[in-house]
Amino acid sequence: MKNVYMDHASATPVRKEVIEAMLPYFDQHFGNPSTVYDMGSKIKQVMEEQRAKVAKLIGAKAEEIIFTSSGAEANNLAIKGAALARQKKGKHIIISAIEHHSVLNSARFLERMDFEVTFLPVDEYGLVDQQRLSQAMRPETILVSIMHANNEIGTIEPISELSAICRERGVIFHTDAVATVGNIPVDVNELNVDLLSLSGVSLDAPKGVGALYFRDNLRLMPLIHGGIQESGRRGGTENVPAIVALGKASELAAKELPDKVNHVQGLRDLLVAGVPERIEQVKYTGHPKERLPGHASFCIEAIEGEALIFMLNQSGIYANTGSACASKALKTSPVLVAIGIPPALAQGSVVFTLSNSNTVEEIEYVLEKLPVAVDKLRSLSPLWRTKEAA
Amino acid sequence: MKNVYMDHASATPVRKEVIEAMLPYFDQHFGNPSTVYDMGSKIKQVMEEQRAKVAKLIGAKAEEIIFTSSGAEANNLAIKGAALARQKKGKHIIISAIEHHSVLNSARFLERMDFEVTFLPVDEYGLVDQQRLSQAMRPETILVSIMHANNEIGTIEPISELSAICRERGVIFHTDAVATVGNIPVDVNELNVDLLSLSGVSLDAPKGVGALYFRDNLRLMPLIHGGIQESGRRGGTENVPAIVALGKASELAAKELPDKVNHVQGLRDLLVAGVPERIEQVKYTGHPKERLPGHASFCIEAIEGEALIFMLNQSGIYANTGSACASKALKTSPVLVAIGIPPALAQGSVVFTLSNSNTVEEIEYVLEKLPVAVDKLRSLSPLWRTKEAA
Repeated sequence: MKNVYMDHASATPVRKEVIEAMLPYFDQHFGNPSTVYDMGSKIKQVMEEQRAKVAKLIGAKAEEIIFTSSGAEANNLAIKGAALARQKKGKHIIISAIEHHSVLNSARFLERMDFEVTFLPVDEYGLVDQQRLSQAMRPETILVSIMHANNEIGTIEPISELSAICRERGVIFHTDAVATVGNIPVDVNELNVDLLSLSGVSLDAPKGVGALYFRDNLRLMPLIHGGIQESGRRGGTENVPAIVALGKASELAAKELPDKVNHVQGLRDLLVAGVPERIEQVKYTGHPKERLPGHASFCIEAIEGEALIFMLNQSGIYANTGSACASKALKTSPVLVAIGIPPALAQGSVVFTLSNSNTVEEIEYVLEKLPVAVDKLRSLSPLWRTKEAA
Repeated sequence: MKNVYMDHASATPVRKEVIEAMLPYFDQHFGNPSTVYDMGSKIKQVMEEQRAKVAKLIGAKAEEIIFTSSGAEANNLAIKGAALARQKKGKHIIISAIEHHSVLNSARFLERMDFEVTFLPVDEYGLVDQQRLSQAMRPETILVSIMHANNEIGTIEPISELSAICRERGVIFHTDAVATVGNIPVDVNELNVDLLSLSGVSLDAPKGVGALYFRDNLRLMPLIHGGIQESGRRGGTENVPAIVALGKASELAAKELPDKVNHVQGLRDLLVAGVPERIEQVKYTGHPKERLPGHASFCIEAIEGEALIFMLNQSGIYANTGSACASKALKTSPVLVAIGIPPALAQGSVVFTLSNSNTVEEIEYVLEKLPVAVDKLRSLSPLWRTKEAA
């Protein structure tokens, strides 16, 4: 049977070069970087080299990178760390209505700590409006967090325009770039952000590693308190093999990104053109142009997304419905609700996220199997049969 | 040159069996356990099998285990998570004066959140006294955290007696067992604790993985907010390879622990008997009997610990001075101060932590090289020369 994996936003296979780079740090160079003898100091040096590689990928300085255990941890550290360190200045923060659960629920936590949170609405494409952000700003606003791109609908936000509004008022700006770093070029200075979260997943690095960029010695309350690791901003022994993996993956991404963007965009365009030709009553969600190059998301009328995923799975196709975290927690995706998709249509969400390993043949295979699966599911749907009969 | 590694409390080489178990989860079985298709659900099942293995090692139920990115994260989640979830009941917590930085600084964070923290003193061996704990209890006490064993002086605390005091008052009891799980038998029911932190390091698993045991659905405010992973107590995509490694390491530890205890205790006793025979004015720190079997810690008069570590390093011996996290942050170890070691003597701290791979020959080598290093350093010490002349 075919094996067509198109759920790269949920998880990616780690590249061979990355595994090879990481392996010696499990049992050969295994020392603790905080120890003072030669083994420790050599490993500390290796770790600092990785920090420089990750920094380079996003146009930052090495000392502005904190290694974390995931993109989710980076988001938690950014939101809670920046807000709790600044609460004497004010207790109001602003996030968009379509943030990842790790940002959203960090903001909800701050509400319990007597912060006020404004949730900015988005338009039909998922875009945050500059004017709305300006209007939401208050004298006591200390932090704004708007994601760089949304994994469920692919839309890329106008970050540099939004961050400019914050910069002129001295308000800290964070962006969750988990969906973009590794998928499109990202530069912290062009984006003009103070904090940026990234994850190993979009870089084909292992699970369990991420990073937070923080500008110019920005104050952060640690999320994980402990020793003086990571410039005192994140305690606990550093996860050296994972850090080496992230460094190697960042180095490779920096070289290969332009080719990857072209490759996945070509495939994505084939898929996006082919689906409405073969399936009636399907809506392409998210922004048609300002979106991740390897991202195609649809809502299909009279379909239950999870049932479709199972049907595709039987043909060896791996796709997603809504975000990975949301898929089991919620019936209707809050992101699709936020962009005004009616709840019934939102049920029929299917998301394809592509990578370098995907091929034209795989897209053709999906374009063959997807309509069959949709027809089968619709034939079982009383709603659809009523419509057809009408 | 010899390579005698005796700093297993700081870091351990990952076992071959553990690396082999983990490897296929980087690039073959790489799916996200939260996805609904077959690859995701198979990986979720594997993850739950690992949870059962870790639980079995400490006498817990699988559903009482949360995977974390380190022992430090587990400690942060336990202290902050339990305290913040219970703050309406009271805002007083009790910890010992010799806790790890991840517990100590989590408590300091709670002080900034208007909690009160009592730091319990310890005796000359580092033991917490039951009566002192009883006296420190208040109606508004909601949490007590006393470590199972201290990595700097090896002392094992009388946890079941201390937890009994909390249990009868309905106060949550946490123990940091990072130094014990993998080194001595640990059973959450014998210890009678509500929360217990462990780390992969003492199990020869990789860095970057730990776990928190929580009794019977105990409420915890998440430290890393996100999706519904880890029963809603820890967000972020699960670090599957690291979790598989921890499971395998736990399985192996459960079988091999009695032999390991005997082996390292025999070696430790040789070292502890040999050092004072060869070096004058040396103090064996921590409890002489109630201590980790593979742990030997000394304070050597008129010696600077870090200089001694460098000297030993030149002979291929790897040992530590104070805890790994403290070594660069502080000049005098707070643990040694807490057990009443005079600051000058505390400077001369050296800690050997043994594992299965260490041998009698290695102990003999240390007993040969350590006195030479001490003599050399003392010959450079004006303080020592004055003493000698007197």
